[in-house]
Amino acid sequence: MIYLDNASTTFPKPDVVYDVVDKVQRTCAVNAGRGSYKAAQEASNIINDARKRMAKLVNIQDENRVIFAPSSTIAMNQVLNGLNFSQTTNVYISPFEHNAVVRPLYKLSQEYGFKINIIPFNADTQELDFNSMKNCFVVQHPDIVVVTHVSNVTGLIAPVDKIFTESKKYGTVNILDASQSLGMMPISLSSKIDFLVFAGHKNLYSNFGVGGFIYNSKVELKPFITGGTGADSLNPHMPDVMPVKYEAASHNVIAIASLNASLDWLESIGIENIFSHKKQLTEYLIEKLSALKSIKMHIPADKEKHIAVLSFTHKHYSSKELSDILNSNFDIAVRCGYHCAPYVHKLIGTEETNGTVRVSLGYFNEKSDIDALISALEELES
Amino acid sequence: MIYLDNASTTFPKPDVVYDVVDKVQRTCAVNAGRGSYKAAQEASNIINDARKRMAKLVNIQDENRVIFAPSSTIAMNQVLNGLNFSQTTNVYISPFEHNAVVRPLYKLSQEYGFKINIIPFNADTQELDFNSMKNCFVVQHPDIVVVTHVSNVTGLIAPVDKIFTESKKYGTVNILDASQSLGMMPISLSSKIDFLVFAGHKNLYSNFGVGGFIYNSKVELKPFITGGTGADSLNPHMPDVMPVKYEAASHNVIAIASLNASLDWLESIGIENIFSHKKQLTEYLIEKLSALKSIKMHIPADKEKHIAVLSFTHKHYSSKELSDILNSNFDIAVRCGYHCAPYVHKLIGTEETNGTVRVSLGYFNEKSDIDALISALEELES
Repeated sequence: MIYLDNASTTFPKPDVVYDVVDKVQRTCAVNAGRGSYKAAQEASNIINDARKRMAKLVNIQDENRVIFAPSSTIAMNQVLNGLNFSQTTNVYISPFEHNAVVRPLYKLSQEYGFKINIIPFNADTQELDFNSMKNCFVVQHPDIVVVTHVSNVTGLIAPVDKIFTESKKYGTVNILDASQSLGMMPISLSSKIDFLVFAGHKNLYSNFGVGGFIYNSKVELKPFITGGTGADSLNPHMPDVMPVKYEAASHNVIAIASLNASLDWLESIGIENIFSHKKQLTEYLIEKLSALKSIKMHIPADKEKHIAVLSFTHKHYSSKELSDILNSNFDIAVRCGYHCAPYVHKLIGTEETNGTVRVSLGYFNEKSDIDALISALEELES
Repeated sequence: MIYLDNASTTFPKPDVVYDVVDKVQRTCAVNAGRGSYKAAQEASNIINDARKRMAKLVNIQDENRVIFAPSSTIAMNQVLNGLNFSQTTNVYISPFEHNAVVRPLYKLSQEYGFKINIIPFNADTQELDFNSMKNCFVVQHPDIVVVTHVSNVTGLIAPVDKIFTESKKYGTVNILDASQSLGMMPISLSSKIDFLVFAGHKNLYSNFGVGGFIYNSKVELKPFITGGTGADSLNPHMPDVMPVKYEAASHNVIAIASLNASLDWLESIGIENIFSHKKQLTEYLIEKLSALKSIKMHIPADKEKHIAVLSFTHKHYSSKELSDILNSNFDIAVRCGYHCAPYVHKLIGTEETNGTVRVSLGYFNEKSDIDALISALEELES
């Protein structure tokens, strides 16, 4: 299989992930607990190591601000549902947001009666329209801003620093969805980012079962998911201690061990090398696709703002037909459809095409994978 | 290590679990999707197989009523937060409930102003007081009843059929927390159980990362966690289709594959054989512990209502001290403390002892494990 669906899940993982998962499941896949029996302490140490590596990755000191969750979706639900809303809360999101952001916010907006504002889009550049956004902010002061760092549809790198600097002038709570970026791009948490949500199984190269958020804010977050925490059991509230306040239920030490191993691997490779490898592949992919007459790419005009994910539509095939052909006839794995991002398709003109074919690159892809894709698409040109 | 902490997590797992996890992580740990590329279809087939096995296990026809979640805690949060409450809702829970039940309910009770009623306890028998409960029901008609099938502190098997039959006379929503029972005891879902919550990593012998609930009710459950579902992406609501309505985010196909394998293994062993093996061990454990003067057991008077989990306190050591000694000097893994069950300790007299030492048995335990524990405790008698 030529795997080009890394925006869904990176695959394969580095061998260290497979090895550690197999080891941990056989030796210490028990309920973590400091001051408990040895295997439980070992599980606890693994979780703590992973927390420290995550803190280091985003350049914060206090690892207890790293909250683990079973997925970035659950983490985003925890963050969004933990905030305070009213009918007059001004929420801004980018048009590239995933349903992990849109659906929880939509549910909250129905409950509290606020409106979700979409940051304007520039159809010429296929980027966010920063100046229009600034004007919107003047008219309707932002309270909460959510931006996905890298679009899982077009690969646009959003100017999060600029956006969050601007919104912070109004004292916003800023939430960065780093599901598609953390591990591929360096992120140093500044005070402009209140909450950063991450997915382990994407660019952090862990297995499924671990995501989370970094709590980098003075804003109080209400616990959303509650349950057992292994300590302070007589307290009917979640214990008021980080990170346990937001980590109900047994930790998935196997998944967290896979993250611990993959973070170590990421450090040894160097995120800048991962980025540059993907950048080269992205440019090569664009160059090759540009030569195909039936293909229309949906990517930012400025190549500097584009990485790893590329959507296209085909003159003769629907995205579903084309991905089926690529799978059946060429054993090439791509995704078709809307990719769980509801707003962007109206803007890039792919709502009526039932979405796009999406190619998304991982560190383990090589030029030969792109050559295979291009060769298949060339066959379909005639 | 002599592992006697199976109520936290069963350990070890059957070899088929380890083997399938290692295979799946290396071959098809991608985002599941029917009608997608082969590895994604394979992942999808595994999930569907596991769903069918779960449906068969609880004797229901429609596997789409099996909702997978990352843990039983999250599943319980989904069920409880999905129900409708008001200030006058009469909620009854057993005094054996875990914080996965108590804390979400407590949070909801603060939000809506209802009171949580505890089903009366009989201190002589260490059981629920069924007749008092009936009287409570007459005075305050129950609306929602939550009962844990097997106590994770005392091993009491609750008379759920009797309780739920009685409560259904008032048209209740009945929720069974089967975290400690499903896989060890046969459960055939009757119409008296609206929602059954299960934990994969306990008596179902899967790895961490999968739990869920069985939706066996006509009651409408509001989605609590929302997000991407891989299909129907332009819909700002969760799609109104089972089970996807309650399954936001990428499926953890590795954990679900481990459940699929362990359910197959469970069927080959036979749940009745697992129960009888544990029953024998439980009786042997009680017999041996009875001979020790410093030990006070906290178990139901009727041995027929007791299985697999046993709590005790010690005349000379706190539960923390004793579990530390068992770990350090004898490499025996037990739990100490309150075991995330806040109400039961007041009733069994272990609140002021800072909880109990808990021994919990798994299928892979043998008499020799109990002999080792008893031998260690005998040394500490003198």
